Amino acid sequence: MKLQQSPSESGLKGAIPAGAKSWVPVQAGSDFPIQNLPFGLACIDHVEEAVVVAIGDQVLDLTALAAEGLLPEEDFPILHCFIDVDKNDLRVLRMLVYDLLREDNSTLRDNMALRKAAFHPISEVEMMVPVEIPSFVDFYAGIYHAGNVGKMFRPDMDPLLPNYRHLPVGYNGRASTVIPSGAPISRPKGQYRPKGVENPVFGPTQELDFELELGFFISDGNEMGEAISVARAEEHILGLVLVNDWSARDIQRWEYQPLGPFLGKSFATSISPWIVTMEALEPFRIEGPKQQPEPLEHLLAAGPAHYDINLEVALRTPSMRQPQVIARSNAKHLYWSIAQMVAHQTSNGTAIEPGDLVATGTISGPDPGSFGSLLELSWNGSKPLRMQETGEERTYLQDGDTLTMRGWCEGHGIRIGFGSLETMIGAVS
Amino acid sequence: MKLQQSPSESGLKGAIPAGAKSWVPVQAGSDFPIQNLPFGLACIDHVEEAVVVAIGDQVLDLTALAAEGLLPEEDFPILHCFIDVDKNDLRVLRMLVYDLLREDNSTLRDNMALRKAAFHPISEVEMMVPVEIPSFVDFYAGIYHAGNVGKMFRPDMDPLLPNYRHLPVGYNGRASTVIPSGAPISRPKGQYRPKGVENPVFGPTQELDFELELGFFISDGNEMGEAISVARAEEHILGLVLVNDWSARDIQRWEYQPLGPFLGKSFATSISPWIVTMEALEPFRIEGPKQQPEPLEHLLAAGPAHYDINLEVALRTPSMRQPQVIARSNAKHLYWSIAQMVAHQTSNGTAIEPGDLVATGTISGPDPGSFGSLLELSWNGSKPLRMQETGEERTYLQDGDTLTMRGWCEGHGIRIGFGSLETMIGAVS
Repeated sequence: MKLQQSPSESGLKGAIPAGAKSWVPVQAGSDFPIQNLPFGLACIDHVEEAVVVAIGDQVLDLTALAAEGLLPEEDFPILHCFIDVDKNDLRVLRMLVYDLLREDNSTLRDNMALRKAAFHPISEVEMMVPVEIPSFVDFYAGIYHAGNVGKMFRPDMDPLLPNYRHLPVGYNGRASTVIPSGAPISRPKGQYRPKGVENPVFGPTQELDFELELGFFISDGNEMGEAISVARAEEHILGLVLVNDWSARDIQRWEYQPLGPFLGKSFATSISPWIVTMEALEPFRIEGPKQQPEPLEHLLAAGPAHYDINLEVALRTPSMRQPQVIARSNAKHLYWSIAQMVAHQTSNGTAIEPGDLVATGTISGPDPGSFGSLLELSWNGSKPLRMQETGEERTYLQDGDTLTMRGWCEGHGIRIGFGSLETMIGAVS
Repeated sequence: MKLQQSPSESGLKGAIPAGAKSWVPVQAGSDFPIQNLPFGLACIDHVEEAVVVAIGDQVLDLTALAAEGLLPEEDFPILHCFIDVDKNDLRVLRMLVYDLLREDNSTLRDNMALRKAAFHPISEVEMMVPVEIPSFVDFYAGIYHAGNVGKMFRPDMDPLLPNYRHLPVGYNGRASTVIPSGAPISRPKGQYRPKGVENPVFGPTQELDFELELGFFISDGNEMGEAISVARAEEHILGLVLVNDWSARDIQRWEYQPLGPFLGKSFATSISPWIVTMEALEPFRIEGPKQQPEPLEHLLAAGPAHYDINLEVALRTPSMRQPQVIARSNAKHLYWSIAQMVAHQTSNGTAIEPGDLVATGTISGPDPGSFGSLLELSWNGSKPLRMQETGEERTYLQDGDTLTMRGWCEGHGIRIGFGSLETMIGAVS
């Protein structure tokens, strides 16, 4: 590979020093300092799809840099799209971009014509789903969420089912309806049985809910029949995004026995636009909760495998000027690590593929203010949320409501953010 | 479109007269008379992937016909592969092939050099999964199967759950592990809890089972947010294949609550190689079972929407010379029609895509000899099957066993068959 710049050895591993600075201005509190450099796919000027990197309040169009010879296009077919996602390519590419953006590198800084062509205000580009997603799998690794659901729906039993602490429960979702931040969703229709009624009806869901999750993209897959070990699982993970696993609770409740969620979930899943790389998240790696009983060997992990990622959900009704934060949680509340999810999913020889999206399940914390769904926040509709600005109440989402999720790591003198995942609820489709 | 032949008007609709004959010899009882002409994707001479049609005991390589100008290649990009599946294209193409194969057409018949290049014995080509499959969805529409499972696992309740007669229950499966007939499967490992033991173990499944199903391929999809009506659903269906939905019962039993089957199914799904078109199946359209209560309007169908397709499962252990038929069933035992499955799946606005594979769920009949899984045939392991030739017993499948599924329609003086779906159980992966 012909590197036009020479990243240092630590750089090749993807670590950007906490003290590094860019000649691109980055506001205090920005999600996108030079230590982050997440990847996305942007539609620029309503025509061109380009692989871009975020820095400060700008996106940097990598295809424009390649056209001018600043990035070796022949080495990075991913410059055109993310269809062939290669983790190593992307790691090296990110470090080349880092070098171009360092405050002491004048190559791009002093090329005003190229800067004009390559940089765009983040507010002016339309971000897309970054990769073609062959499959979407959703886990259930948020133990407080699983416990809350158990308390509500099986009040006489142990809230956690017997399998919960032995394996990461998960299911196959629908990849064809994954949409980007900014794309509105339509209230889905479906069959459900209103409370106290014997026969079901068909119509718009009356219980439209969100689920606060993280998701990760698979870079390299495995051959069918070959398992991926916990120890090697993260080598197959490109990076993380925020995921809103939209749920129609009434449809889900009626359909889900015995084969699990289907149409109550498949109508839409929203993801944030920026793939925050594992390298950028590395400083925020932490120990997860103690797993008791100890997992069986194929799920046994050594060392910290969780991430300290703050998560926040805000709601704005059509009458409100400002969104109100309705939940604050953290990825540390996941019982199972993302490495364990990969190991579990492939433990039976299932082939996973580049671009596969895997989500964690709803990440609730232990306190009511940290619950990651309206099902939990309103305790199955029994405790409506009050909007302070207008006095309105919400159990489930209404048409015109806008839901925003945010995620960020903070510490070591840096902040690594995910940007926002914002979705408006449209009318019935 | 430049048709080099001129199919009659009825021909353009895809109906091939029951009395039609081909100059290609077709043995009595063949699955592939000229009235069938199913499509497949073949690997010929271990190198070339070609779209082929089956007739008698031969496959006809359509790319070879196109190279000689007998099929208008420019009109049929699908000649190279099935990635862009268009139902209308395929319907017209099938009628062009029909015309070339009619006994009174000498064009191909008298071109011995081209016949030599284009025909191959069916036994000498390797058939592949015919299309790239974006998603695999599996329904649960076999009412006798659902009832049997209910009787075994919920003996104190109504065997059918309350939702069963109101909607076709289904779930998202795993598309990346769909494999063709002839490909062996490895016994998957997984986590399960042996009977009478508190803690689960991880190891090769002890309860490897098959499920006898039919599947269909989606031709044209829908836009996200747009439902497909029952009346128009079949316009989106290309044709049918046999499906073996491999199941590891011990893994499935331990993992499936509350989110449904995952690793107990995702390790492999086998399909038969020939897409039997809806046009070929049309003469075998029948009324389905009376649906009581009457479905809600979005699932309400007028007229016969089921198909009279005989189904058969045979098992051969390594010690047996001949396979033994262990189950005989029929697609008429499905409670929900395939049109209702499409309408249901899209009723919430889910986007379905060309190449999507949708399976019916296990098709058991009312009698023990018609059960479509070993779970049912051995009644949860309590009644082992006896192999007449060797006296061996089977509850679940053993390494070295070969399972074969067949399907065919018979009547109106014709037989439309699916060929066979044959799979050997290999050792642990």
